[in-house]
Amino acid sequence: MFMHNKRLQYTVRVAEPNPALASLLLEQFGGPDGELAAAMRYFTQGLGEFDPGRKDLLLDIATEELSHLEVIGSIVAMLNKGVKAQLSEAAMEEADLYMAINAGGDSHTQSLLYGGGPALTNSSGVPWTAAYVDTKGDPTCDLRSNIAAESRAKIVYERLINITDDPGIKEALGFLMTREIAHQKSFEKALYSIEDNFPPGKLPGIVKYANMYVNTSQGEGDMEGPWNTGEQWERVDDLNATLPADGGDGLASVTLDEKTDAVVKKLAARTLSDPAQDPETGADLGAGPGAGKISEEDLGGAKDIADATAQAKAI
Amino acid sequence: MFMHNKRLQYTVRVAEPNPALASLLLEQFGGPDGELAAAMRYFTQGLGEFDPGRKDLLLDIATEELSHLEVIGSIVAMLNKGVKAQLSEAAMEEADLYMAINAGGDSHTQSLLYGGGPALTNSSGVPWTAAYVDTKGDPTCDLRSNIAAESRAKIVYERLINITDDPGIKEALGFLMTREIAHQKSFEKALYSIEDNFPPGKLPGIVKYANMYVNTSQGEGDMEGPWNTGEQWERVDDLNATLPADGGDGLASVTLDEKTDAVVKKLAARTLSDPAQDPETGADLGAGPGAGKISEEDLGGAKDIADATAQAKAI
Amino acid sequence: MFMHNKRLQYTVRVAEPNPALASLLLEQFGGPDGELAAAMRYFTQGLGEFDPGRKDLLLDIATEELSHLEVIGSIVAMLNKGVKAQLSEAAMEEADLYMAINAGGDSHTQSLLYGGGPALTNSSGVPWTAAYVDTKGDPTCDLRSNIAAESRAKIVYERLINITDDPGIKEALGFLMTREIAHQKSFEKALYSIEDNFPPGKLPGIVKYANMYVNTSQGEGDMEGPWNTGEQWERVDDLNATLPADGGDGLASVTLDEKTDAVVKKLAARTLSDPAQDPETGADLGAGPGAGKISEEDLGGAKDIADATAQAKAI
Amino acid sequence: MFMHNKRLQYTVRVAEPNPALASLLLEQFGGPDGELAAAMRYFTQGLGEFDPGRKDLLLDIATEELSHLEVIGSIVAMLNKGVKAQLSEAAMEEADLYMAINAGGDSHTQSLLYGGGPALTNSSGVPWTAAYVDTKGDPTCDLRSNIAAESRAKIVYERLINITDDPGIKEALGFLMTREIAHQKSFEKALYSIEDNFPPGKLPGIVKYANMYVNTSQGEGDMEGPWNTGEQWERVDDLNATLPADGGDGLASVTLDEKTDAVVKKLAARTLSDPAQDPETGADLGAGPGAGKISEEDLGGAKDIADATAQAKAI
Amino acid sequence: MFMHNKRLQYTVRVAEPNPALASLLLEQFGGPDGELAAAMRYFTQGLGEFDPGRKDLLLDIATEELSHLEVIGSIVAMLNKGVKAQLSEAAMEEADLYMAINAGGDSHTQSLLYGGGPALTNSSGVPWTAAYVDTKGDPTCDLRSNIAAESRAKIVYERLINITDDPGIKEALGFLMTREIAHQKSFEKALYSIEDNFPPGKLPGIVKYANMYVNTSQGEGDMEGPWNTGEQWERVDDLNATLPADGGDGLASVTLDEKTDAVVKKLAARTLSDPAQDPETGADLGAGPGAGKISEEDLGGAKDIADATAQAKAI
Amino acid sequence: MFMHNKRLQYTVRVAEPNPALASLLLEQFGGPDGELAAAMRYFTQGLGEFDPGRKDLLLDIATEELSHLEVIGSIVAMLNKGVKAQLSEAAMEEADLYMAINAGGDSHTQSLLYGGGPALTNSSGVPWTAAYVDTKGDPTCDLRSNIAAESRAKIVYERLINITDDPGIKEALGFLMTREIAHQKSFEKALYSIEDNFPPGKLPGIVKYANMYVNTSQGEGDMEGPWNTGEQWERVDDLNATLPADGGDGLASVTLDEKTDAVVKKLAARTLSDPAQDPETGADLGAGPGAGKISEEDLGGAKDIADATAQAKAI
Repeated sequence: MFMHNKRLQYTVRVAEPNPALASLLLEQFGGPDGELAAAMRYFTQGLGEFDPGRKDLLLDIATEELSHLEVIGSIVAMLNKGVKAQLSEAAMEEADLYMAINAGGDSHTQSLLYGGGPALTNSSGVPWTAAYVDTKGDPTCDLRSNIAAESRAKIVYERLINITDDPGIKEALGFLMTREIAHQKSFEKALYSIEDNFPPGKLPGIVKYANMYVNTSQGEGDMEGPWNTGEQWERVDDLNATLPADGGDGLASVTLDEKTDAVVKKLAARTLSDPAQDPETGADLGAGPGAGKISEEDLGGAKDIADATAQAKAI
Repeated sequence: MFMHNKRLQYTVRVAEPNPALASLLLEQFGGPDGELAAAMRYFTQGLGEFDPGRKDLLLDIATEELSHLEVIGSIVAMLNKGVKAQLSEAAMEEADLYMAINAGGDSHTQSLLYGGGPALTNSSGVPWTAAYVDTKGDPTCDLRSNIAAESRAKIVYERLINITDDPGIKEALGFLMTREIAHQKSFEKALYSIEDNFPPGKLPGIVKYANMYVNTSQGEGDMEGPWNTGEQWERVDDLNATLPADGGDGLASVTLDEKTDAVVKKLAARTLSDPAQDPETGADLGAGPGAGKISEEDLGGAKDIADATAQAKAI
Repeated sequence: MFMHNKRLQYTVRVAEPNPALASLLLEQFGGPDGELAAAMRYFTQGLGEFDPGRKDLLLDIATEELSHLEVIGSIVAMLNKGVKAQLSEAAMEEADLYMAINAGGDSHTQSLLYGGGPALTNSSGVPWTAAYVDTKGDPTCDLRSNIAAESRAKIVYERLINITDDPGIKEALGFLMTREIAHQKSFEKALYSIEDNFPPGKLPGIVKYANMYVNTSQGEGDMEGPWNTGEQWERVDDLNATLPADGGDGLASVTLDEKTDAVVKKLAARTLSDPAQDPETGADLGAGPGAGKISEEDLGGAKDIADATAQAKAI
Repeated sequence: MFMHNKRLQYTVRVAEPNPALASLLLEQFGGPDGELAAAMRYFTQGLGEFDPGRKDLLLDIATEELSHLEVIGSIVAMLNKGVKAQLSEAAMEEADLYMAINAGGDSHTQSLLYGGGPALTNSSGVPWTAAYVDTKGDPTCDLRSNIAAESRAKIVYERLINITDDPGIKEALGFLMTREIAHQKSFEKALYSIEDNFPPGKLPGIVKYANMYVNTSQGEGDMEGPWNTGEQWERVDDLNATLPADGGDGLASVTLDEKTDAVVKKLAARTLSDPAQDPETGADLGAGPGAGKISEEDLGGAKDIADATAQAKAI
Repeated sequence: MFMHNKRLQYTVRVAEPNPALASLLLEQFGGPDGELAAAMRYFTQGLGEFDPGRKDLLLDIATEELSHLEVIGSIVAMLNKGVKAQLSEAAMEEADLYMAINAGGDSHTQSLLYGGGPALTNSSGVPWTAAYVDTKGDPTCDLRSNIAAESRAKIVYERLINITDDPGIKEALGFLMTREIAHQKSFEKALYSIEDNFPPGKLPGIVKYANMYVNTSQGEGDMEGPWNTGEQWERVDDLNATLPADGGDGLASVTLDEKTDAVVKKLAARTLSDPAQDPETGADLGAGPGAGKISEEDLGGAKDIADATAQAKAI
Repeated sequence: MFMHNKRLQYTVRVAEPNPALASLLLEQFGGPDGELAAAMRYFTQGLGEFDPGRKDLLLDIATEELSHLEVIGSIVAMLNKGVKAQLSEAAMEEADLYMAINAGGDSHTQSLLYGGGPALTNSSGVPWTAAYVDTKGDPTCDLRSNIAAESRAKIVYERLINITDDPGIKEALGFLMTREIAHQKSFEKALYSIEDNFPPGKLPGIVKYANMYVNTSQGEGDMEGPWNTGEQWERVDDLNATLPADGGDGLASVTLDEKTDAVVKKLAARTLSDPAQDPETGADLGAGPGAGKISEEDLGGAKDIADATAQAKAI
């Protein structure tokens, strides 16, 4: 069961209202790597976890992330406090209010639709979705996902710190950013406390494919590094010669019973695309009598669209 | 520039049509950890990458994931080949067709809406969304995210392998699963080839918060482990005593100019919730003259809803 | 700041695993009227609220809803406990596992994608979205929305109670359902504690339109009731005669400067649809020489599609 | 069956084109509380309604909301009339067109993607989704939801009126806003015409939980009001002492058969997180030889991130 | 299988960084008619296609669209190259960085959330969704959808060309735009190579309804054209007289067995809306003692909301 | 302005309730090519249209599609009439109700969440989104999109007709399907009434790229047809030799000022991936002492995953 103390985990002191900055900070409130995503990620993992140590860890951090959600949401609420009241009370001339809600980000939507409260959207107004939560219910996967998620959240906080000079906000964001570092460390410890954590899951890979590196992107810029070269790697450069990997014919097939096969053939016959004819098409009808638009006379060898544009305007 | 050879990277041999199994396999076609997600994850990272080695690696693997998308999509197309033709040609009685498309998963939608082609949805028919791609444009973040994504894809393949006994499908899924292991290894090498990769980004954390572990979930089941105990951790158990972490008052505040402050007060006054009165409410109006529904007489001390249900049915 | 005690707000005793039932219960975990929606609705309102009484109320109930999220999620986790382990360990034959995850609802996705953990989706696997949260930042609106939301949650719990006979689950759902009733009562009290709460907001309506009832749907079935008849209503039945409501010409117009007007005319001329000609179309091309498909000879006066179908099959 | 008269329900006279304002008005076209949401809410309820009076009411208002959708959409079309033509005809220099479509809101997307037509998005360009419609198919729920929805729409119109000084737009918005007030009144009448409308549905609550108020958020700011205090409420302040509410052990459990239990134990053993060791982790590898980033030497007791930033820049 | 050459299909030369323009160009990267949509549309169709000619065509164009995705994404990456580095390195004062990422479009989100990489969103930051792909698995449908999709993509490129004067970008967009024209021509040829392609599918229409034109929108502005007038059309103007089209009673009915019918009646009786009473409502409670807000005295015959607003402010 | 007559455009006679069939029919209610999508597509186009003939056509068909939405929704309501009442009244044993709502499709969600009313989702429960509407505001594009949309709707109706043998439903679906054919014909006429309708828009293509066919997918299965062969096409087969199309270097570049260039270099240096070292990785740590999982000894040359699985189980 959850309980709540009205004091925040970190004191929020905002220097002055700024709805545009508020809308940017939403990235860590209702954005994909924000605090709701973090809290829900760990909370849902915690509920399904069998291991008591990990369950405790997940619930500890989930609960703390809810407190972070409260801190970042409180900053947003403070930054919007002025515009919320002014729009509710119609306390300014229309044109001034229009300016006030249009200063940047998606602050216009935050004011008009959400009334200046902290909304669970990202900085473009996209509503938070549980599709952001990538929990798989397997501990070595989920811990890796959590490590990655903490590192993403850290970076977004770093970017937000870099764009504001309000010292109170900077300080609170610094606290939140640092806690992501701490959480990443905890999840790393938990991952490596599972003795045999790679590859994830139970099923081993097939040896001949596990050390193969397929050099699918070639041409100038092909590089070597420990990720594709060295003792452990069998590198495939001649793609066509080694296709398919299994030595088969590389086709897709399915065994059909006779009756089904007949129906498939019937469908194929009915929708046959006859390659032998050159039919008149709707585009031919629509290109008009002169079909002038793309004739060589009009455009010559015009290599760039700037010429084409000029000619088109002249038509 | 991309090029394509009509042979698959791995030969697909399906034993017999099965639209319900097809709809489950969509998890790795248009699901959150499927091959489109993988391809787009690495492709978008590759385009924005400054480091030539990582750029090459990302484009190599992105291109291979597109080929995997083709393999899994071809399996789905083969499994649906029969139902597609039968529904198009109306080759069965209505009731039989109804049964054929309703055998499990979301195969009904796959047949009716997508005509038996491989659709970019997950196994519940949820369309793929770029919200699944968690690229941040920072290499140590993105590589951690890629490592996690490969481990998730590996697990989903493992689960799919566990539920089908079609040997051709099992074999192809085994190939795809193993390639995820290989890709994870490559991304691990690339991450650790960046000398100073933790914490991600440039900005360090604040020392006093980086080693703090906040034990927010307490009670029976509290555990110790290397993730919260040991030399490197300062563990906080007495939450109320240490709240807030910064030693301030734990409140949220913003400095308002006089005029704005007046408007805020005006709004507060207009929408004051008067705690002194006990008003009649809409629920009071609606509870009806007898208001019998929740009176103690009817329900007694009914401790469980089974009793309540029985009583309700008897009313 | 949030804190957590590992005991649940209500004890969960599940009689036996049942992943299909688990997927139905998700409606109150990650569905539109589920506990996450409730918690986030009140939490975001609470952060932006100026009135101390309402702020306290909103945070109290938000926190309790998080505890309910934990209860319903724990039921789901218990119902999935078996299938999660069996799929992870591949402890059953493939065909049996396939059956086990395909027993109903979207349990197949819950197993394959989410590994049997409680996922933040509804019972069709649609991920939770903050678009479910309809907070407007105006107290009389938001309290009405909260009242409605509690009533919706109550109904969904009632439906879930009606479809399960597991006594432990029924009892816990009964607790959760009842708490929605209590919360609705609290929100009703808070709404009516605002002296002048109708209409919401500050701006009054225009008198002549506020009591008008427009009878737009006519014909058999037209009814009278206190919602459209009586002293307070001015009912409009002759729609064409009273159109538009303002007595103007009912057209949409905008004043354009001369230059813009010329460009608008140029666009209109370029894309003019000439009503005088009867052009040959792509459909004409495509209907084929015989155009037999819809000729009267083939289909006669076929009144119902059953005939048409029969004839089509015979073609 | 629907019919249409080309005259609008309210005459639209726009003073001059303004694509940025157009994009804000979309809130009531394709936003969550806009006219499409209203129309679809009542229309879908009307189709499923058994009660002839409510069915008539719902279809009347649904039809009127479609006419409102037409009015607000026509305003948007007028505001965009200039930019639509100028972009289609390339009638301005590139830089001027760029400025014209970038004046605020999401007018850039409205021009580029939707060509200046009224698009079914909110003011941030988020496409309308049926997830906004919260119909439950129970009349006392749905009427409460409708009352709340009308109050939300009223508030958004009020905000839009407050930010524009175009008299023709203001007048039309005033008409639309007032109609929401009228509709709310009708739905209130319909709700209270159901004799016993609280609690919604058929199943009563459990008495002991229906009057309980759980004071989950404590600390400074705890308030009393009719929503938590008074004769009808049993208030719970000592949370830990009364946990869980049912007097049980507060744990989640499920009865497993022997075989399943063995598999669960196998999974737990395989993925055991060993709390006794302190493993080296990926973060340890990545922190680099100096691990300097977060050492106390570099950062000292830096209390705020401003110091940390300065030091980081100096590194 | 896919292969990749690191050279682009068209050389990208960007004159200078411009993150706001970058965010507009995303319309063709991750927007609904952008290159990912095109590639996935043709790729999924190709996998399910039975006809070898169409399969080849679809895979050719799908592969080329992936190369276009690479071109447009590379332009975006170049336009963002500066801001990406500056934000990562915190190389500018906070206020300057804030300005740099707030110059227009949704460039703020592209910088903060995606780090300046090309993200799969549209120009408002809405993530790409497979819901954009309208593949039906029927060739005459899908080819028509492809023709339409190419024409949409052509128009969006034309708009983007019209708003930028960077010659390198203009030239590359011109190439991409022209390729859409070429692709449309190919799909037209493929459609008309199917002999009998209209109506799509196998089932013919019912003759009496196939040539009927229902003039549902009447009043000033009613027009005639070849789409509703002429030999092939039977035009219905008197809507009420011809309703319903089948000559029945125009009602919806279902046959219920006796037991079900009784339950339906029970539900109807329990939720009866009694039209005879005029109940007091929540709105009546909330309108307050004076109910002054909408009294005629205050507002008089105020015809426009401007008056109402003035009066409201005066209150 | 819209008006409504309570008679349907086509009489609905349903033989017996069937919630699973109801959930399949939702495809044409709230699915991507269903009637709401059609109505909103034409309605939004109509509002923004300058040409009076097309405007009239669009509003006529938009209005008729709303009437179709009513017909299909009424069928759904009839099919759900029984289950709606039974679930509301708890008129069956729990296990029977559970069976009744779990008969197929997503009828469980339709019952639990939407109460048996017609919900605006597709047959998998995915909520309708305006992302389905592909209106561009250019008439030749939009008419092509409408033609395609009508053909898609026709096909889905055909599929639904093929799976039900209820004669009343079949007949009504036949009417609706046929109207799509009629609408397609009208839109074709309107498209070809625009004199010069190909290519869409105003800007011509660049001649040298407009007739080029790029044969990107090669290998067995390469085909010729009028879409890639013949007088009008210049076919490119040697991809590497003609790369890039413009004869440049095929690279992406941007001109940076000196200061920006320095920051870019700084970022590149800080995040350099050193290809010379072969670092120990997290996967190395996690593979465990034996790292046995993928050693050749354990798996041998196991070619197929069935072997691997067997061996894994044996471990």
